[in-house]
Amino acid sequence: MVSPAEDVDAAMPPALRAGLAARAAEVEAALDTLLPQGPAAEARLFEAMRYACLGGGKRLRAFLVLETAALFAVSPTCAARVAAAVEMLHAYSLVHDDLPAMDDDDLRRGQPSTHRAFDEATAILAGDALQTRGFEVLAEPDTHSDPQARCELVACLAAATGARGMAGGQMFDMVAEGQSLTAAEVTRLQALKTGRLIQFSAEAGAILGRAPLAQRHSLAWFGRDLGAAFQIADDLLDALGTVEETGKTVGKDAAAGKATLVTLLGPERARAQAELLARQAAGHLDGFGERAALLRQLAAYVVNRRS
Amino acid sequence: MVSPAEDVDAAMPPALRAGLAARAAEVEAALDTLLPQGPAAEARLFEAMRYACLGGGKRLRAFLVLETAALFAVSPTCAARVAAAVEMLHAYSLVHDDLPAMDDDDLRRGQPSTHRAFDEATAILAGDALQTRGFEVLAEPDTHSDPQARCELVACLAAATGARGMAGGQMFDMVAEGQSLTAAEVTRLQALKTGRLIQFSAEAGAILGRAPLAQRHSLAWFGRDLGAAFQIADDLLDALGTVEETGKTVGKDAAAGKATLVTLLGPERARAQAELLARQAAGHLDGFGERAALLRQLAAYVVNRRS
Repeated sequence: MVSPAEDVDAAMPPALRAGLAARAAEVEAALDTLLPQGPAAEARLFEAMRYACLGGGKRLRAFLVLETAALFAVSPTCAARVAAAVEMLHAYSLVHDDLPAMDDDDLRRGQPSTHRAFDEATAILAGDALQTRGFEVLAEPDTHSDPQARCELVACLAAATGARGMAGGQMFDMVAEGQSLTAAEVTRLQALKTGRLIQFSAEAGAILGRAPLAQRHSLAWFGRDLGAAFQIADDLLDALGTVEETGKTVGKDAAAGKATLVTLLGPERARAQAELLARQAAGHLDGFGERAALLRQLAAYVVNRRS
Repeated sequence: MVSPAEDVDAAMPPALRAGLAARAAEVEAALDTLLPQGPAAEARLFEAMRYACLGGGKRLRAFLVLETAALFAVSPTCAARVAAAVEMLHAYSLVHDDLPAMDDDDLRRGQPSTHRAFDEATAILAGDALQTRGFEVLAEPDTHSDPQARCELVACLAAATGARGMAGGQMFDMVAEGQSLTAAEVTRLQALKTGRLIQFSAEAGAILGRAPLAQRHSLAWFGRDLGAAFQIADDLLDALGTVEETGKTVGKDAAAGKATLVTLLGPERARAQAELLARQAAGHLDGFGERAALLRQLAAYVVNRRS
């Protein structure tokens, strides 16, 4: 698997790079603890869950959970559990999206996708069980002393990832293939498919911190705009990047005839839109002072990332 | 879809038949409310979720939730939400088990399985989103006034259905294909694959009712033994039943060379074992008096069911 450090590109500010690496290490340790090996007969399922979830990616979502939780002095152990749960849900969605019946992708983070490394049935089950484990972790007492906070985490993560969120976005994406979407439709599709989970990740710190509603909303809006900027940057990478830089198959959108803001507006206007969203995202952090410095750097960086 | 009434066979005691029909109607109404239609672009996903979940089966698990909740005078609305969540998790597992990469089954409850009625990608997503919705429903305030109870429901249902429960059992089942299992291994496999969810269903009433631990354990043990008896009865139906009686493909286990207690012990000894388990299950209800009469009838009936 690609180590978090290799995933970080040279254009990144050093403080942000250090912060991302530290947060990635935190969530990696939590995932390693929370996804143990299983008994002999089912060992293959546990292996596939760990394969899909450990050692990979920028851990953007975990970073958002951990950084927003730190704004409210939440216990790092509790925050790491929530970050791990979010990464489990994210990993489950990637495992299922990569399946032959879905995007049919052989490569993920420069490595064989889970159904290629194991088999299709194991990948389906591993995705299923990662989702289950994510919700289980959130509901367990170690995640927060107040069960009300745990219930909010479960309900909000479910809303972000279910039929009215991520799964609905994936359905929309499949239905839209071969159709010509408007920019507004593409924006809605991406808000569902990737935006809602990124938004939840930023909001999670406020839920953990039992923050006043105004602060919780500010962080949710930060996550929403950041997620939208992030997705446009992702589409720019797919259109203009290389396999070596990104560690994944590129040119997929064009090959599939898939509309993105890049194909609809052109790379220049799409990049301008991403930059606008990133500034808007940073604006929602105005009330949080210096403690939100890394989150602001992330918003500025995300548009210019190369992987 | 087969209506609940058609699923009920003639050997069933009239009071149990009426009870099952009434409980099935309750959970059907709850599912209809909790699984609404979706917006145009994702409508197909919502349709597939409803197709997989509505109008089908004996609703054994819902019956257990509703009957055990009634022992503690739990609000029927709250209990119906939990019953619906359990049926969503059960339906998700059936949708994914039926996929070509898993059991590759075209028929479910006498109707095309979800991937045959829609397509494979939609079925994967519908299963995913049914799981998500199940946990979301449990975590929402309408399910119980005490968030501690809601967290316990989420955590216990997750434990029953995840890698150490149902999903682990499915993995075990796949790994075991072509291997010769012992009776003890088959028993463990079935406890994971189907037993844990039935056990949770019986325990859920006690969680909702904030029952003393001793009563909660009695109901969990009732569910565990009932589930084991139920599974042997299922294997007997697969070995000896017809498509017309059962509404599903039969002879699957023999065709797949799959070990069950029926293939290992023979039908007579397997039936004797199921009857022993059913009596043992009923024994755990001794402390609940007349209010548990239907649960006792269910334990006696389950071994002799014909569908």
